[in-house]
Amino acid sequence: MVLTTDAMAAATSDRAWIRAMLDFEAALAGAEARAGVIPLAGAKAVRQCCARDGDFDADHLGRQGRLAGNPAVALVAALRRLLPEDLARWVHFGATSQDVVDTALMLVLRQVLDLVLDDLARAAEATARLAQRYRSTPMVARTLLQQALPTTFGRKAAGWLVALDEVTGSLRHIRHHRLAVQLGGPEGTLAALGEHGPRVVDELASELGLAAPVMSWHTDRTRVAEASGALALAAGVTGKIALDVCLLMQNEVGEAFEPVAPGRGGSSSMPHKRNPAMSAAVLAAWRRAHGLSAILLGAVAQEHERAAGAWQAEALTFSELCQAVGGAVSVTADILSGLEVDPARMAHNLALAEPRALAYGLLTSEGPTRVEVPAPGWLGPADVPGWLGPADVPGWLGPAEALVDRALAMHDKAEPHA
Amino acid sequence: MVLTTDAMAAATSDRAWIRAMLDFEAALAGAEARAGVIPLAGAKAVRQCCARDGDFDADHLGRQGRLAGNPAVALVAALRRLLPEDLARWVHFGATSQDVVDTALMLVLRQVLDLVLDDLARAAEATARLAQRYRSTPMVARTLLQQALPTTFGRKAAGWLVALDEVTGSLRHIRHHRLAVQLGGPEGTLAALGEHGPRVVDELASELGLAAPVMSWHTDRTRVAEASGALALAAGVTGKIALDVCLLMQNEVGEAFEPVAPGRGGSSSMPHKRNPAMSAAVLAAWRRAHGLSAILLGAVAQEHERAAGAWQAEALTFSELCQAVGGAVSVTADILSGLEVDPARMAHNLALAEPRALAYGLLTSEGPTRVEVPAPGWLGPADVPGWLGPADVPGWLGPAEALVDRALAMHDKAEPHA
Amino acid sequence: MVLTTDAMAAATSDRAWIRAMLDFEAALAGAEARAGVIPLAGAKAVRQCCARDGDFDADHLGRQGRLAGNPAVALVAALRRLLPEDLARWVHFGATSQDVVDTALMLVLRQVLDLVLDDLARAAEATARLAQRYRSTPMVARTLLQQALPTTFGRKAAGWLVALDEVTGSLRHIRHHRLAVQLGGPEGTLAALGEHGPRVVDELASELGLAAPVMSWHTDRTRVAEASGALALAAGVTGKIALDVCLLMQNEVGEAFEPVAPGRGGSSSMPHKRNPAMSAAVLAAWRRAHGLSAILLGAVAQEHERAAGAWQAEALTFSELCQAVGGAVSVTADILSGLEVDPARMAHNLALAEPRALAYGLLTSEGPTRVEVPAPGWLGPADVPGWLGPADVPGWLGPAEALVDRALAMHDKAEPHA
Amino acid sequence: MVLTTDAMAAATSDRAWIRAMLDFEAALAGAEARAGVIPLAGAKAVRQCCARDGDFDADHLGRQGRLAGNPAVALVAALRRLLPEDLARWVHFGATSQDVVDTALMLVLRQVLDLVLDDLARAAEATARLAQRYRSTPMVARTLLQQALPTTFGRKAAGWLVALDEVTGSLRHIRHHRLAVQLGGPEGTLAALGEHGPRVVDELASELGLAAPVMSWHTDRTRVAEASGALALAAGVTGKIALDVCLLMQNEVGEAFEPVAPGRGGSSSMPHKRNPAMSAAVLAAWRRAHGLSAILLGAVAQEHERAAGAWQAEALTFSELCQAVGGAVSVTADILSGLEVDPARMAHNLALAEPRALAYGLLTSEGPTRVEVPAPGWLGPADVPGWLGPADVPGWLGPAEALVDRALAMHDKAEPHA
Repeated sequence: MVLTTDAMAAATSDRAWIRAMLDFEAALAGAEARAGVIPLAGAKAVRQCCARDGDFDADHLGRQGRLAGNPAVALVAALRRLLPEDLARWVHFGATSQDVVDTALMLVLRQVLDLVLDDLARAAEATARLAQRYRSTPMVARTLLQQALPTTFGRKAAGWLVALDEVTGSLRHIRHHRLAVQLGGPEGTLAALGEHGPRVVDELASELGLAAPVMSWHTDRTRVAEASGALALAAGVTGKIALDVCLLMQNEVGEAFEPVAPGRGGSSSMPHKRNPAMSAAVLAAWRRAHGLSAILLGAVAQEHERAAGAWQAEALTFSELCQAVGGAVSVTADILSGLEVDPARMAHNLALAEPRALAYGLLTSEGPTRVEVPAPGWLGPADVPGWLGPADVPGWLGPAEALVDRALAMHDKAEPHA
Repeated sequence: MVLTTDAMAAATSDRAWIRAMLDFEAALAGAEARAGVIPLAGAKAVRQCCARDGDFDADHLGRQGRLAGNPAVALVAALRRLLPEDLARWVHFGATSQDVVDTALMLVLRQVLDLVLDDLARAAEATARLAQRYRSTPMVARTLLQQALPTTFGRKAAGWLVALDEVTGSLRHIRHHRLAVQLGGPEGTLAALGEHGPRVVDELASELGLAAPVMSWHTDRTRVAEASGALALAAGVTGKIALDVCLLMQNEVGEAFEPVAPGRGGSSSMPHKRNPAMSAAVLAAWRRAHGLSAILLGAVAQEHERAAGAWQAEALTFSELCQAVGGAVSVTADILSGLEVDPARMAHNLALAEPRALAYGLLTSEGPTRVEVPAPGWLGPADVPGWLGPADVPGWLGPAEALVDRALAMHDKAEPHA
Repeated sequence: MVLTTDAMAAATSDRAWIRAMLDFEAALAGAEARAGVIPLAGAKAVRQCCARDGDFDADHLGRQGRLAGNPAVALVAALRRLLPEDLARWVHFGATSQDVVDTALMLVLRQVLDLVLDDLARAAEATARLAQRYRSTPMVARTLLQQALPTTFGRKAAGWLVALDEVTGSLRHIRHHRLAVQLGGPEGTLAALGEHGPRVVDELASELGLAAPVMSWHTDRTRVAEASGALALAAGVTGKIALDVCLLMQNEVGEAFEPVAPGRGGSSSMPHKRNPAMSAAVLAAWRRAHGLSAILLGAVAQEHERAAGAWQAEALTFSELCQAVGGAVSVTADILSGLEVDPARMAHNLALAEPRALAYGLLTSEGPTRVEVPAPGWLGPADVPGWLGPADVPGWLGPAEALVDRALAMHDKAEPHA
Repeated sequence: MVLTTDAMAAATSDRAWIRAMLDFEAALAGAEARAGVIPLAGAKAVRQCCARDGDFDADHLGRQGRLAGNPAVALVAALRRLLPEDLARWVHFGATSQDVVDTALMLVLRQVLDLVLDDLARAAEATARLAQRYRSTPMVARTLLQQALPTTFGRKAAGWLVALDEVTGSLRHIRHHRLAVQLGGPEGTLAALGEHGPRVVDELASELGLAAPVMSWHTDRTRVAEASGALALAAGVTGKIALDVCLLMQNEVGEAFEPVAPGRGGSSSMPHKRNPAMSAAVLAAWRRAHGLSAILLGAVAQEHERAAGAWQAEALTFSELCQAVGGAVSVTADILSGLEVDPARMAHNLALAEPRALAYGLLTSEGPTRVEVPAPGWLGPADVPGWLGPADVPGWLGPAEALVDRALAMHDKAEPHA
């Protein structure tokens, strides 16, 4: 019952974590050999074992990790068991459990970000198409769920697009600038590597394609908190879109619809219903992403050189967060890619709104204006002298269309790797 | 890397959810047959299929549930496929997906509560033994992590005991008074069952051993929020205990230690360390329980007769919450059952604290007192004229011992099913 | 810009906290004199000073409290300054800062609960009237914001009523069984009071009208967490009601409206709008209550005999939570008391929904039924052979009406002090 | 009892919000006059009124804001009352309430960020001095609160410094790139300004010193969520530092102490205690910042063109968040500026730790190494053959010192306005 995609489930599975931890151990051995800290034969042996990830039992490691507080102790022990004693000593040399788990987290996060960024790009492209296509399609803007004044569906989509582009920018920044190896050893000074410490860190970072940090960040969790905050915010932006779609899909509104997908949105009791099941799934995932990211942010204040509890809460929560965000963004991209828009219904609903605006002089035949009005009240259609559509009002939709153009231009300018 | 117990993992597994959903469908068919709503043959056929839970593929249902927004649609479809058309119509008759999932949640919750209550009882018994055994063992009370004045370890344990008893009482109340069937049908009025609706609810409740609510509670989530709040609070109480143990285990304090368990608390780099790995696991689980319960509380405001997003966020989050709480309570029971206490170290640390208290007249040879003192400052041992232990001060430990007795008496009085 | 009522703002003001802290000090001195711990003359002098609450400068105490970590140190110092030295020593005798602040919290909480329970009663009475009045008024039930099948507005109101009654019960339980004095002295053993400790606690509790706990609960925060959880849940129930009202008030739905109140719901730019401003305020307050209660629950795991940080986060957060909940419940009572219901619009919207249900045989001329239907799809009115209203369907609304009657009967039975 | 500084209390007071809202209205009128949308005389009159902020009653506006859902309606009305009818119409021309409140939030945020960045700079400078001064001062690293292996206090301080620099960078980015005016009018298209809309936005942004956004961001709350997340993370970093200080200040550890400040850290019952009152205040503020930022992140998914509830929850929560963060960062700067370090106690505690490390061959007379060790266990001092200090081990502290130098070099390079 996990609300995520197959790809994200795989990227954050126990198996993916084991693969990432083995990648760390292999790269560490290589880096240490290149730096002259351990013998080449030792590194070669370690790396061969790390390639055999089928030999590692995820269930067993998970259970051992539960007992030991983290899975690295068991993984290191399992690796050592694969080697003769004289070579086993070069496994995990100079490192500590948290080095393995944190670097693995960064490797998993990189894969997660790539998936999320792909889906965000897909969502943004679909949204840009909607903004372009419905640039001039009048609909009523709604504030506090009440009909307000005319806008266009393109303007609404452009608002979604700007928000998608903003979170894309944040996640790209993290992807390209904030992923770093963790290597500090048990006391965070790399003492066991002596003068070779910095070179090993650089070699390790280079092999894994991660940054080499100023120093190990065992209890400086800003990288994790920034990433989880940005991921949750991306889910929040999709939550906003899904909420709008849910509201637009109401039978009484009926202006836009998520696509019909086999197996999605059905009711076990009311087959005639067309449920916003995808939007509801996004909203559910967003709720989870919000709460899960709060756990991770709350874990930032960690004791001394390794925390007792806060750090141990991270890895599982992080995986769940990624799954929630991955699901939210992917399904939102699906919704936007297949969104069905009903311009006629939009015009119909707008027509119901305009008399009220006209009656108060907010719309005149010369266009929109802003005048003093009598005390508020509620007018029915019968109170209104006539009807006047946006098409009859010069300039009314002009600003909305210009805003769409600005958002599209900004979207086109956004560099893929900014 | 799930921080829970095997029993709790099983109680909240996809398999357990499927079993609970099938129990609902079986009981529903039975109730409807007894009420004369569906034919006996139909009920019998449905119940036979529901017994074959090995026929239901958890992975497939999970994936379908992901698409449809909940797993009930796929489960109902799978059940119907097991029957000829004329009998398949009696599957899930008059019910809606949420009826299945919510009742299943209550059944899962019952099992969860039984596990948690067992572990809470185990933790409380161990704590009562500690309070009794160390009733008069002097140690220093610490406020804001600073040594304050003498107390006894029994008093500290008694404080844990009272809190454990309090959360036990809350969870027992939920276990015995707040678990209810969900049956409302698609519109919450049981319209398809007509006049037989109330009887079917009563029969269903009776067979499942749950309460029959005033009406269906599709968007009244107080039951779920109360349970998740009480579960999280239980984890919080264990978090307090684990935090105390972590602090007491510090090398510089050394007054109490979680038990040594194979595979627990080791360091991949520093085998000489004795880590508070169990306490850290409890603290990690408590952090998760806190955040997960916030997701569930936040989902309380649900739209109309079925929510779009808030409800869909519940089931997975609820399972994770139960796993976190189950792990926290079980490991805490283990810690308390095997806690190693060092009264000599307690006396040693207390001796370091008392001179300061004495110097300020808080302790006198006649016993504790409270006098006006000069401006605050910091005294080292050299500033203090002499040393006087609790054993030399008549009455000093008396109040602590009396409090232990009160807590033990209260614990003994607590009824198992209050 | 505080979203609360004047009464709740007063009940949780700095002034109210000072009054409650002075009530504690006065009652403590009295209890100690009655128990023979301090001289009667000392108690009398202390009590006279405590009556002069105008002499205490809230701003000054607040600032001092900020520096000292809590306001009690400055309050006790201010009290002592009002007395000659030989009497000043009987101020706060044997107590610690946390005793003052925690007992004050319980006194403030009692006042808060009385206000909230009054408003909950007002909300429930208004809801019961709605349920009664609209017991048989047909409307469409909506699931996932989609029109489903017929219900009555009375059934919807009855659902609100049951939830209001549930949280009322929880808060009453806390009001009558979980408010307790805090008195433990600096180490939690009441050592300075010696054998008289228990009697002083009993006398103190009796004078303040609070329970005497088994022992001091300095770092057993279950009372605070339970109260804040129950208060937040009450706000959540009002959030559900406000969300429903917001959705019903949509121009396109138009089935119910919060009352028009002067100064409420206006738009600075669109005077023709009728905003759900009260409902939005309730939803805003609920969001705050949710987050603030999470801070308090998160603070449950406190170190040793007094926490460094978690306790200090409580008092302000607690006041803000009470203000949020107070505002949410009071405004919801206003909304429900003046709710404008439009049965004609309900009938109109229901008529739009029924053809779809009929087309699938969910409604027949013999009444509601449940049959196998072809693959889901989307039918417009043109696809439907005819129209049939609930009034034409014998028994359709019967279950809804019976549920209303059950909820009303349960509400009438709820004892005011259960 | 607000945990903040006077400067931050002022920057987020009702008065500061009113000033910021008046700044918006004044700048709007000026921008519109320059763009030819309203007459110069109208703009001049509006700007004169906006200068008279003493004429606006914060209590009255607050109460009105409570009723209306936001304070802008009452402020605009109050402004209009100050002008004759023919000029009053140019107040707030073309704008909507949310334009005022959101731009005011950005102006308040700018002031908040300047205060926080000043205190972060002060904290970082003090930390850099600590890192420099104690670059080679040996102490024991602690993992899971257990003594591990030697490090230096300079390395610990360097870890704090890197984290402070990281959050400084994030907040500077927001300060210089993410603060933008809000101007969209009631429907988000600036329709009432017609073709002049973009120019008015640019002029408004220029006068207020804020960025001109692509379009109005009424329901794109990424700016607010990013700022609140970064502010909370800054508080989290101070929480980590305060937690370390609390732990180091324990009597049994005694390695570092927050400074003694008048009125701070006293106990109402135990004047001999030296409480970590400042650190506890930071930890309390961090807990609040965490929860308050979660409310703001949770409010990101807002309906259509203006939210019903989520937006209304922002302003008050935002002020409280800023106060919490401001208090946390300022007090942390005070702690770090006056931190008292006890190198002798550090050496003493380290000496207790080393025998265990030596016994397992982690330290040898040739320096640190990593060898295979027997099964874990617990050794007392008696089990250890001899004692060997870091000073005796060539290279042991070298890596720590090099890391300090790296952190200091990175800190010196950080540009003040990056």
